Amino acid sequence: MLPKMTAARKCYEFPGDYEMYRGGVLHKPVLAYETWGTLNPERDNAIVIFTGLSPSAHATSSQEDPSPGWWEEMVGPSRPIDTRHFFVICVNSLGSCFGSTGPASVNPQTGELYRLDFPVLALEDVAITAHEVIRHLGIEKLFGIVGPSMGGMTTLAYAAMFPGTYRRLALISTGPRSLPFATAFRSLQRELIRKDPDWQEGNYEPEAGPIQGMRLARKVGMITYRSAEEWEQRFGRERVTQERRAGDSFALDFEVESYLESNANKFIGQFDANCYLYLSRASDLFDIAEHGGCVDAALGCIRAEQVLVVGVNTDLLFPLHQQQELADTLAAAGNSVRFEALESIQGHDSFLVDMDRFRPVISQFLSAD
Amino acid sequence: MLPKMTAARKCYEFPGDYEMYRGGVLHKPVLAYETWGTLNPERDNAIVIFTGLSPSAHATSSQEDPSPGWWEEMVGPSRPIDTRHFFVICVNSLGSCFGSTGPASVNPQTGELYRLDFPVLALEDVAITAHEVIRHLGIEKLFGIVGPSMGGMTTLAYAAMFPGTYRRLALISTGPRSLPFATAFRSLQRELIRKDPDWQEGNYEPEAGPIQGMRLARKVGMITYRSAEEWEQRFGRERVTQERRAGDSFALDFEVESYLESNANKFIGQFDANCYLYLSRASDLFDIAEHGGCVDAALGCIRAEQVLVVGVNTDLLFPLHQQQELADTLAAAGNSVRFEALESIQGHDSFLVDMDRFRPVISQFLSAD
Repeated sequence: MLPKMTAARKCYEFPGDYEMYRGGVLHKPVLAYETWGTLNPERDNAIVIFTGLSPSAHATSSQEDPSPGWWEEMVGPSRPIDTRHFFVICVNSLGSCFGSTGPASVNPQTGELYRLDFPVLALEDVAITAHEVIRHLGIEKLFGIVGPSMGGMTTLAYAAMFPGTYRRLALISTGPRSLPFATAFRSLQRELIRKDPDWQEGNYEPEAGPIQGMRLARKVGMITYRSAEEWEQRFGRERVTQERRAGDSFALDFEVESYLESNANKFIGQFDANCYLYLSRASDLFDIAEHGGCVDAALGCIRAEQVLVVGVNTDLLFPLHQQQELADTLAAAGNSVRFEALESIQGHDSFLVDMDRFRPVISQFLSAD
Repeated sequence: MLPKMTAARKCYEFPGDYEMYRGGVLHKPVLAYETWGTLNPERDNAIVIFTGLSPSAHATSSQEDPSPGWWEEMVGPSRPIDTRHFFVICVNSLGSCFGSTGPASVNPQTGELYRLDFPVLALEDVAITAHEVIRHLGIEKLFGIVGPSMGGMTTLAYAAMFPGTYRRLALISTGPRSLPFATAFRSLQRELIRKDPDWQEGNYEPEAGPIQGMRLARKVGMITYRSAEEWEQRFGRERVTQERRAGDSFALDFEVESYLESNANKFIGQFDANCYLYLSRASDLFDIAEHGGCVDAALGCIRAEQVLVVGVNTDLLFPLHQQQELADTLAAAGNSVRFEALESIQGHDSFLVDMDRFRPVISQFLSAD
């Protein structure tokens, strides 16, 4: 899979080697990013967005790339992350496949794709390489970092490793580390990909790959991203129409099955399988406790002017008690913390879809004095 | 897979054809069952247990078969379902593979295994064929029916179709129908089995079969049977020891992954894949509303002397609001209902493992005047 280049995408190439957090070296890795708005002369109006596992740097549309971004309603002029006031940066995570160096990239030292020769990826690597991009842009202190889901863990890693380089942190539907229930789901997704014979131990050709495994992993993902409550309201026990049924007697029968199927099919070809494996494992490996001996001590070292912690009562991957833990621990460490427990039926994905609940929270946090 | 015969297992062979609830015919199907205790002269002390998807009729040990049953702590002398007082019957569901006729059985009219020629199975078929066994045993009115999980839906089908043939109903961690979230998980399990090339469109040899698909389906099952809270307490972020790690860099790393792996491996060869598909689909197809036009009307036709509805706050497959719905609707219809919402961290499986909570509830219900 070749990354689509867009006019909005900028790239930063490291001048030399990058030593990975858990060992191994990348030679001159590239980070893809997009920016919106203007950096003011004081260079103090920059906001970085760290993404979840699968999005690109294209958080929102722009003149250079008018296609809708993955957080279109959140980022832009007069939107909560207001590009009239802020200089907004979104980085494609190291290890991903939308312009940044990852397992699907060519290793410049061998001329071959990295594939499984890519070193173990940590979210700390995502944070450290993004920090280089931010320095490259001439920014010493960020107005804020906004991180939903995996991006929230990247934000915590950044906050712990680069004290004094940010003023506000927005931690959204995330936690200080992965819990075993989330790890079970992600581990299953990785196994579904790896058990697909077309994965070929990671050596599939870029245009081929484990389509079945990725489809099945996406279905598991969809189940974990939403909630039982939402699907009960949305699908109930509705059946697919007879003409849409196909195949043997065990084929699709309920609308919820059809929904999963069409979502899984849409994902085909959208993400490189090896990159998915690396980022998924990085999520499971992340533990803020590594930055201080224990969770409390590590979070206790984080100092921001203002912290927002927001979560949703129906989140299966990062349950609300994890956001409560973040809020309590960061507050106990002396931070000014605003904790929002939102009632939304759209589960982990709420920050992407339940915009009426999320927009005002983000907007108020960024505009507060 | 040949069913193991045990001395405790009894069989009832239908004298002729059985017409399936959703169409199709079985010729002289066989129902396997076990009994414990003694039917009293009044024939009014019988309790039937309907099982979840995968158990056999061996609910508890006996002199004839001293191996532990799947509900060993619940059934037996001086246990909540007390075999000193009750004549207890457990039937292996039609469609299963532990002695009862199912897709893994030989079709007596062709001499071949049924496989996918087995007609669509409904939980009503499980109830109707069990009713024949009960009549064969000379029982006109049951003291009670106890049904956990899928067995609870079978109990509802039985109660709706055979009014006046029972006095008490115990509905455990079940619901009036499958919700789309549960259907999504079960649909995924079926797809994992069907996508395994070794499934061979259902035509695998009995000793072979889709082992990988069954392993993966079991992992999905384990995730849905337990709860995030339990795994957080039990595993946290514990890692497997280095010597137990094997394979590539994406192999097992966390204890929770190892737990899923060993549980999935234990399941290999324990259950026929086609039988699993039929019973799983039967669970999704079940809707008590078919017995009265809507859920309320159908439940409104059920009349028992006493009803127990019990559920657990952490159940992902049959969430507590489904038990609340059962209890409220059955009570509104004039039944005497006892509703128990148990706080247990062991999820849907609590009725099998959190015995300290479940034993007293079942015991009190069956011993109450």
